[in-house]
Amino acid sequence: MRGNDQQAYDRGTSLFSPDGRIYQVEYAREAVSRGAPSVGIRTAEGIVLAAMSRTSSPLMEAESIEKLHKLDDHVATASAGHVADARKLIDLARQQTQVNQLRYGEPVGIETLTKHVTDHIQENTQLGGTRPYGAALLIGGIENGEPRLFGADPSGTPHEWKATVIGDGREEIQSTLEENWTDSLSLEDGIELAVTALGEYADDLTAADLSIATITEADGYRVVSEGDITDVVPDLPADADAVADEEDDEPADDDEPADDE
Amino acid sequence: MRGNDQQAYDRGTSLFSPDGRIYQVEYAREAVSRGAPSVGIRTAEGIVLAAMSRTSSPLMEAESIEKLHKLDDHVATASAGHVADARKLIDLARQQTQVNQLRYGEPVGIETLTKHVTDHIQENTQLGGTRPYGAALLIGGIENGEPRLFGADPSGTPHEWKATVIGDGREEIQSTLEENWTDSLSLEDGIELAVTALGEYADDLTAADLSIATITEADGYRVVSEGDITDVVPDLPADADAVADEEDDEPADDDEPADDE
Amino acid sequence: MRGNDQQAYDRGTSLFSPDGRIYQVEYAREAVSRGAPSVGIRTAEGIVLAAMSRTSSPLMEAESIEKLHKLDDHVATASAGHVADARKLIDLARQQTQVNQLRYGEPVGIETLTKHVTDHIQENTQLGGTRPYGAALLIGGIENGEPRLFGADPSGTPHEWKATVIGDGREEIQSTLEENWTDSLSLEDGIELAVTALGEYADDLTAADLSIATITEADGYRVVSEGDITDVVPDLPADADAVADEEDDEPADDDEPADDE
Amino acid sequence: MRGNDQQAYDRGTSLFSPDGRIYQVEYAREAVSRGAPSVGIRTAEGIVLAAMSRTSSPLMEAESIEKLHKLDDHVATASAGHVADARKLIDLARQQTQVNQLRYGEPVGIETLTKHVTDHIQENTQLGGTRPYGAALLIGGIENGEPRLFGADPSGTPHEWKATVIGDGREEIQSTLEENWTDSLSLEDGIELAVTALGEYADDLTAADLSIATITEADGYRVVSEGDITDVVPDLPADADAVADEEDDEPADDDEPADDE
Amino acid sequence: MRGNDQQAYDRGTSLFSPDGRIYQVEYAREAVSRGAPSVGIRTAEGIVLAAMSRTSSPLMEAESIEKLHKLDDHVATASAGHVADARKLIDLARQQTQVNQLRYGEPVGIETLTKHVTDHIQENTQLGGTRPYGAALLIGGIENGEPRLFGADPSGTPHEWKATVIGDGREEIQSTLEENWTDSLSLEDGIELAVTALGEYADDLTAADLSIATITEADGYRVVSEGDITDVVPDLPADADAVADEEDDEPADDDEPADDE
Amino acid sequence: MRGNDQQAYDRGTSLFSPDGRIYQVEYAREAVSRGAPSVGIRTAEGIVLAAMSRTSSPLMEAESIEKLHKLDDHVATASAGHVADARKLIDLARQQTQVNQLRYGEPVGIETLTKHVTDHIQENTQLGGTRPYGAALLIGGIENGEPRLFGADPSGTPHEWKATVIGDGREEIQSTLEENWTDSLSLEDGIELAVTALGEYADDLTAADLSIATITEADGYRVVSEGDITDVVPDLPADADAVADEEDDEPADDDEPADDE
Amino acid sequence: MRGNDQQAYDRGTSLFSPDGRIYQVEYAREAVSRGAPSVGIRTAEGIVLAAMSRTSSPLMEAESIEKLHKLDDHVATASAGHVADARKLIDLARQQTQVNQLRYGEPVGIETLTKHVTDHIQENTQLGGTRPYGAALLIGGIENGEPRLFGADPSGTPHEWKATVIGDGREEIQSTLEENWTDSLSLEDGIELAVTALGEYADDLTAADLSIATITEADGYRVVSEGDITDVVPDLPADADAVADEEDDEPADDDEPADDE
Repeated sequence: MRGNDQQAYDRGTSLFSPDGRIYQVEYAREAVSRGAPSVGIRTAEGIVLAAMSRTSSPLMEAESIEKLHKLDDHVATASAGHVADARKLIDLARQQTQVNQLRYGEPVGIETLTKHVTDHIQENTQLGGTRPYGAALLIGGIENGEPRLFGADPSGTPHEWKATVIGDGREEIQSTLEENWTDSLSLEDGIELAVTALGEYADDLTAADLSIATITEADGYRVVSEGDITDVVPDLPADADAVADEEDDEPADDDEPADDE
Repeated sequence: MRGNDQQAYDRGTSLFSPDGRIYQVEYAREAVSRGAPSVGIRTAEGIVLAAMSRTSSPLMEAESIEKLHKLDDHVATASAGHVADARKLIDLARQQTQVNQLRYGEPVGIETLTKHVTDHIQENTQLGGTRPYGAALLIGGIENGEPRLFGADPSGTPHEWKATVIGDGREEIQSTLEENWTDSLSLEDGIELAVTALGEYADDLTAADLSIATITEADGYRVVSEGDITDVVPDLPADADAVADEEDDEPADDDEPADDE
Repeated sequence: MRGNDQQAYDRGTSLFSPDGRIYQVEYAREAVSRGAPSVGIRTAEGIVLAAMSRTSSPLMEAESIEKLHKLDDHVATASAGHVADARKLIDLARQQTQVNQLRYGEPVGIETLTKHVTDHIQENTQLGGTRPYGAALLIGGIENGEPRLFGADPSGTPHEWKATVIGDGREEIQSTLEENWTDSLSLEDGIELAVTALGEYADDLTAADLSIATITEADGYRVVSEGDITDVVPDLPADADAVADEEDDEPADDDEPADDE
Repeated sequence: MRGNDQQAYDRGTSLFSPDGRIYQVEYAREAVSRGAPSVGIRTAEGIVLAAMSRTSSPLMEAESIEKLHKLDDHVATASAGHVADARKLIDLARQQTQVNQLRYGEPVGIETLTKHVTDHIQENTQLGGTRPYGAALLIGGIENGEPRLFGADPSGTPHEWKATVIGDGREEIQSTLEENWTDSLSLEDGIELAVTALGEYADDLTAADLSIATITEADGYRVVSEGDITDVVPDLPADADAVADEEDDEPADDDEPADDE
Repeated sequence: MRGNDQQAYDRGTSLFSPDGRIYQVEYAREAVSRGAPSVGIRTAEGIVLAAMSRTSSPLMEAESIEKLHKLDDHVATASAGHVADARKLIDLARQQTQVNQLRYGEPVGIETLTKHVTDHIQENTQLGGTRPYGAALLIGGIENGEPRLFGADPSGTPHEWKATVIGDGREEIQSTLEENWTDSLSLEDGIELAVTALGEYADDLTAADLSIATITEADGYRVVSEGDITDVVPDLPADADAVADEEDDEPADDDEPADDE
Repeated sequence: MRGNDQQAYDRGTSLFSPDGRIYQVEYAREAVSRGAPSVGIRTAEGIVLAAMSRTSSPLMEAESIEKLHKLDDHVATASAGHVADARKLIDLARQQTQVNQLRYGEPVGIETLTKHVTDHIQENTQLGGTRPYGAALLIGGIENGEPRLFGADPSGTPHEWKATVIGDGREEIQSTLEENWTDSLSLEDGIELAVTALGEYADDLTAADLSIATITEADGYRVVSEGDITDVVPDLPADADAVADEEDDEPADDDEPADDE
Repeated sequence: MRGNDQQAYDRGTSLFSPDGRIYQVEYAREAVSRGAPSVGIRTAEGIVLAAMSRTSSPLMEAESIEKLHKLDDHVATASAGHVADARKLIDLARQQTQVNQLRYGEPVGIETLTKHVTDHIQENTQLGGTRPYGAALLIGGIENGEPRLFGADPSGTPHEWKATVIGDGREEIQSTLEENWTDSLSLEDGIELAVTALGEYADDLTAADLSIATITEADGYRVVSEGDITDVVPDLPADADAVADEEDDEPADDDEPADDE
């Protein structure tokens, strides 16, 4: 499957293969799969975004590998994949959020915002002189009082979701979400479901590995503290010792570059 | 058939092969065939557009994989193939629809609109620095009181049709259309024919897999609800259970990227 | 003949081969040969343009694969080859026709118009960043009271003809034209000769497969109806049944893309 | 001689080979050799330009493959090689002729004009993004009362000649010219010499295959009619029958593209 | 691991490999590893930056291979990797520091500054026509009274650190930092830890090989003199003799280019 | 020595080889060596420029292959190599000569002029999108009353000479110059030395093969007539017969392109 | 070591190899090594620059291969490597020197000037469409009364030196400098050390092979005459005979291009 044939389509940024695929886009999707997963869940009360990120060293400030970003009071994003690429997309989204507010005096729509980002992503898969983005985003927020959640992938396709995941372990996490999601979840249920789903992917998950935020009509963007997470999911171990113990077994630390998180 | 010779013509975006073919365009056509089919039918009363789209997860919002788009009261489009590419073409069409209305104070002609889109598609098959579009469109609407239906393919060729299909299963669906189309079909007949044709391609078709819309002089663009579909085609099963049952058997879910729908 | 050597010259859009050929231009000429033939005949009374086009489905509107295009009252064009490319050239010709009328207040000369088009075609064979046009045109009309007929091929060479053909079957059709053309042909003779020549290429030719138009000083551009064709050539079968019968045998329908007509 | 080494230098438009050659220029010269020859002769009375061109079909208008072009009353050009390329160079020369007349109120010098053209040709051999011109020109005319004749080849080198030839059969025709040219030739002698030289290259030459023009101080540009040619060279057969007879033997008609004349 | 496959992705500046990697970025990271290490430590009292640089000749002025650069009173940078690339990034950072001061009348934030630099680095990994930067930076300073330390790597990812290292020996030095760092380190402790960590990487470390600077709220940017270093770490040998003695054994001097320090 | 390795460096216009060479520049130097030699000699009385050029046909006007060009009363140039390239450089020099006269009201300095030309040549060896110049120039003239002679080669290096040669036979001709040049040569001695040196390279040299010019303070640019050459070098045979006799033996005439003279 | 792998990185101007190297920069460094050495020495009294250059022919004017260039009264440069590249860098330095003087009314700083040049060099190693510079510079002068000496290499790295060498023989010459340099050298000592160091590299060194200049606060830029050199280093032989004698043994004359000096 890695023969001469395939190589031919890899070299040009944006050529079709004989079976109608754009390999660079599929490889960019692999870059997303190299990153730790981020989960988004739409609950009756608002959006839950949960990102898993493990620092490659205890001396790294956890916030600096933060994968959740508030764009505005009513909208936030979670990312997975190539970090530098994700940051560029997040900047684009934040900028558009502000432009919309300034120009029209009202908060940007979640779908409108997502499509602004995916338009830009698509162009990077078609025009020469650049590569696709190796990152995916979840964009969630409140629009006209209703919670909405979108995903944007490296092909530039926007999809709306009740609950979804981007990054590594996508299959099993999405499966857990499908089995447990209902449209009557409370915000707290959503946090619990997110932790459960990520916990099945990562056996040794601790509260310290998680960043969780919620966006609701009433409270806007709110970061869920480690304590609050443990309140909701009492079984979840705390962080420091667990991390220290498994440090030696973590092969990713030294051998792999840290640009996919 | 996949020898060294063919590769030579694949690498440059827009070179001719010795037998006068442009392989990138043919590969883009394969990208269209990777997407679920969309059908367009011109009836005596108006245009019927029917798109089949199956969500890769029950948690995906069906509307977000919507393949029917209203451009204006009198004209709409159905797409197949690479989703992000299709969206760009649909944006182009919508923009032109609005420009025409603003500039000339009258609705854009269906043929004029189609040719505006195909001109753009053709340029992407001839000029360097870009790849062809991996998407096809059906553009249908009312022009001077008459229903008209056009297709636009990745080569940039516009054709007018009485009834046609884009996407996967093109041969058998077109064949069903050819056997059953007459110029005296009512709008309801058109909906039934669309469902029948798609049903022969997809044995387990349910109302939930379908998006159907009609464009008529009197009512403009109208979405046909799932209930209305079932009214017209009583045999068609409803959605949730059928989808849930076959979930496990659906290999495309996890292994294939979701950018062709 | 399809060795490594030849490939070298194929990859660059516009390089010479050691024997002084530009392969991309020759391959573009192959693209023309993939299209159904169009015939142009200069008669004493005016120009006859006849194009053969067979719809790939009975549901395709015949006019939408029309290969004859009126540019103005006094000049028209017939095309063969890659449809989307031909359309772009026809647009260029139509535009120039209008510009000339507006700027100089008089109809564009047939030769002037042809050379405007071939200049553009030539540039696409010499400059980088593009491919040649895979289409040929016949441009015929009345100039200063005299009928004139020109051909434009993918190299960008303009030639004036008494009668000629572009597209598939060029050799045998041109041969029939050479045997039968005289300078005293009436317009009706010209129509008959066009049908005869195309009929020797396509044994099962029907009136429905043909588009014929005439350009005369007196009547300008006139489409010849199917009935009028049958009046002139009584042996020619009508269309529907013939087409329906051979539908199953038509391998091109399903396997080949429809972008060369 | 057609090994891997040579290919390396062919692919880039304008690279030197290890022995200091620019292959693309040499291949462009081959394109010139694929065209029928044109002869230029400077006589005491004026310039004689004679071009040989055989229509690929009796239905092609001979004038449309005309290889002699009047640029002005006092200067004309003959071409050989890739027709579309030659036309572009001739347009450039004609334009410059007119610009000179408008700007300085006097006819352009023959040498100045030639160098304007060769400067443009040279740039196409040095800058990227284009290929060399596959055509050569003879530019002859009257400058300050004196006849002058120049040649411009695909490398962009201008040379002044007493008599020369471009296109196929260059060696033998130049040899005939060298044996017979004297500086006291009359205009009629020049015509006769041109016909003789071309006749040794093409055994079956007829008056109809020839275009001849003269440029003199007194009469400016004058086309020599077929009758006048036969007057000067009584042995030369007329055209129609000869052409018709050998039609079947002419392999170039059907197999080779007609873009080199 | 160095097969044909990998080469394919190396040639284009910014393509993804099938496993979602951007090799040029990973190779640029190798360029960083070719440079001597620089250490940054955040202490309770301020930031410590320590760079190791050994002159390739005793006649080279040590300051000219200085890897610590004061950007402003409150912020400085340490670099590792390709020197000329690092200088360009440092210039960019310095410029931005000044622009911020001029435009807003206040010192630039450490995180803001870092992200300005990493945005620029990321673009060089995505757009064509350039290569990634083969250098990494540590950016440390005081922001709102608090010491902050960031790292910027060739992928353009910004991370905040308590203590970290860039350049050669990263694994063992980071390990020493992790074992010894506490949040109650004094500035002097920080200097000692930096020297210790570097000393485990380079057995023969001398004070002369080191550049150390501190940034504190009270004193701003301060270079730590060789004497002060020896005061803090009395075991550390002085420079001249040690360097002279090992000169002959230093193979890097003559064989390797000096552009990675 | 003509292996795969070398090819790699040939394809890019301006890359270094592992041993620090720019092959395209060296190949361009080969293009110079393909041209007949030109000699420049600085004498006490002024500059002598002598170029050898043999017409490929007796019908070619000798002046049109002239390799000596007067730029101004006080400065002239001799060229060797690819003729069209040389012409472009000569135009550049002539233009600069005129600009200098117009702008500063005084003749351009010989060194200044040379460096203007070599700057342009150098850029063609460093920037992409072009090839180096396959021509060398000698630029000689009077500056502040003193004769000066410079050479410009395809690398863009300017050198000042007492006497030198460019083109074919460089080694032996330079050697003759070195043996015979003294700083007390009269202008006539210079002419004689030039003829002697070229005569040792070409055994059958005739006066007709030579173009010689002198530049002196008193007389400015003066062409030395064939008669004057024979006066100075009585042994030198005249031209016509010698040329006619050896015509048949001259293999270069027909087989080689005439673009290097 | 010269396998397929390495080639891959050579072709693109500015890609990293898997071990983090930029081969084009290393090859450019080889181009520097192909040139004769230049030495710079900082003495207590001022800067000494000494360049070795041997004319490839006794007829070449020694000054025209001058490798020392005065930029201003207080700053000068010595070069090694590809001559045409060096000249372009020197022009850049001279221009900046003048701009600084004009704009700020004071002499440019030596370090500022060097960094202006190295910034430009670095860009040529990172951006596409060009190759690195195959030349190195020494820039020496007086800044605020103090002598300063910098080196600029093909990677664009600036270093300050007490004494250094660029070009061929770098290792042994630098070694001699290291053994003999002290900070109390007089200007005369500096000249002697330069001659000694170059003499160990070139056994047959003569005064005529040397260009030496000094820059001091008091006297500015001063060329050291051959006589003065011999006064300082009485053992050094004079030039003419030595050069003449070894002429025949000098293989570089005829076989190697003269563009590296």
